Amino acid sequence: MSNKKDLIVRAAKKEDMGAVAALIKELALYEKAPEEAILSAEDLVRDGFNRRPSFRCLVAEEEGKILGMACYYERYSTWKGKTLFLEDLVVQESARRKGAGKALFETLRTLAKEGGYKRLEWQVLDWNEPAIAFYKKIEGCGLDETWINCRIEFS
Amino acid sequence: MSNKKDLIVRAAKKEDMGAVAALIKELALYEKAPEEAILSAEDLVRDGFNRRPSFRCLVAEEEGKILGMACYYERYSTWKGKTLFLEDLVVQESARRKGAGKALFETLRTLAKEGGYKRLEWQVLDWNEPAIAFYKKIEGCGLDETWINCRIEFS
Repeated sequence: MSNKKDLIVRAAKKEDMGAVAALIKELALYEKAPEEAILSAEDLVRDGFNRRPSFRCLVAEEEGKILGMACYYERYSTWKGKTLFLEDLVVQESARRKGAGKALFETLRTLAKEGGYKRLEWQVLDWNEPAIAFYKKIEGCGLDETWINCRIEFS
Repeated sequence: MSNKKDLIVRAAKKEDMGAVAALIKELALYEKAPEEAILSAEDLVRDGFNRRPSFRCLVAEEEGKILGMACYYERYSTWKGKTLFLEDLVVQESARRKGAGKALFETLRTLAKEGGYKRLEWQVLDWNEPAIAFYKKIEGCGLDETWINCRIEFS
């Protein structure tokens, strides 16, 4: 029996934010900035589960255990209108190759398309070769290296 | 008497969306993609002036004439929390060097800081040297070329 049979993707609940916070920290470690990920599960509950949530989240679950998550929110293109932005897509390292990442991504693609959004957008680090290879296999995915991210941080 | 004395920055109103749509098209032309900017003034009114606006907008005005605008909205960092994203900063080509861009940017910086946002973020095209030079002079601004934009478009 394939493990994939038991894999489900569903909207995250408040009670999942502990597992989601751990996945965020796992990604930050992989992205070489573990000290930057300072939000707690409580912060995520406060910001994601109120009348105007700042983000939404999908989780991939197998036999009651969360293997991965996708955090996303709405953005606005002054050229096209409403778009969906995938902020984080993370699958636990120990749970790779079960199709959880693909299942999360394709669920989000369907949500974006059926929700009337003009684009599904995300970013990838230029040295993250496994992620770039994953995205290059995604149907219809375009990568654009001509934009530079700029920011001012407030303490 | 300096022109700067008459320059004001204020929140955009519905009635400004015609001028804002024209500035969006001016930027799209500069960014070599005029055919991509398909939103009308009516689209901007619908999306920006309702109970849950998709964006907010500042305009720079001189003697009743709009010289420039800044469109922005809230985003969410799973590392830091709420951030503000500057989607477009445009000043009419014929109205450059009056300080309108700087005034718009600094107003937005103040809004972001006083609003408790963790970052003010935006993007710039890697060949847009005047904009990069402008941002490099901005206090506290960091540029990061390690992220690649990815997208799927829906028709």
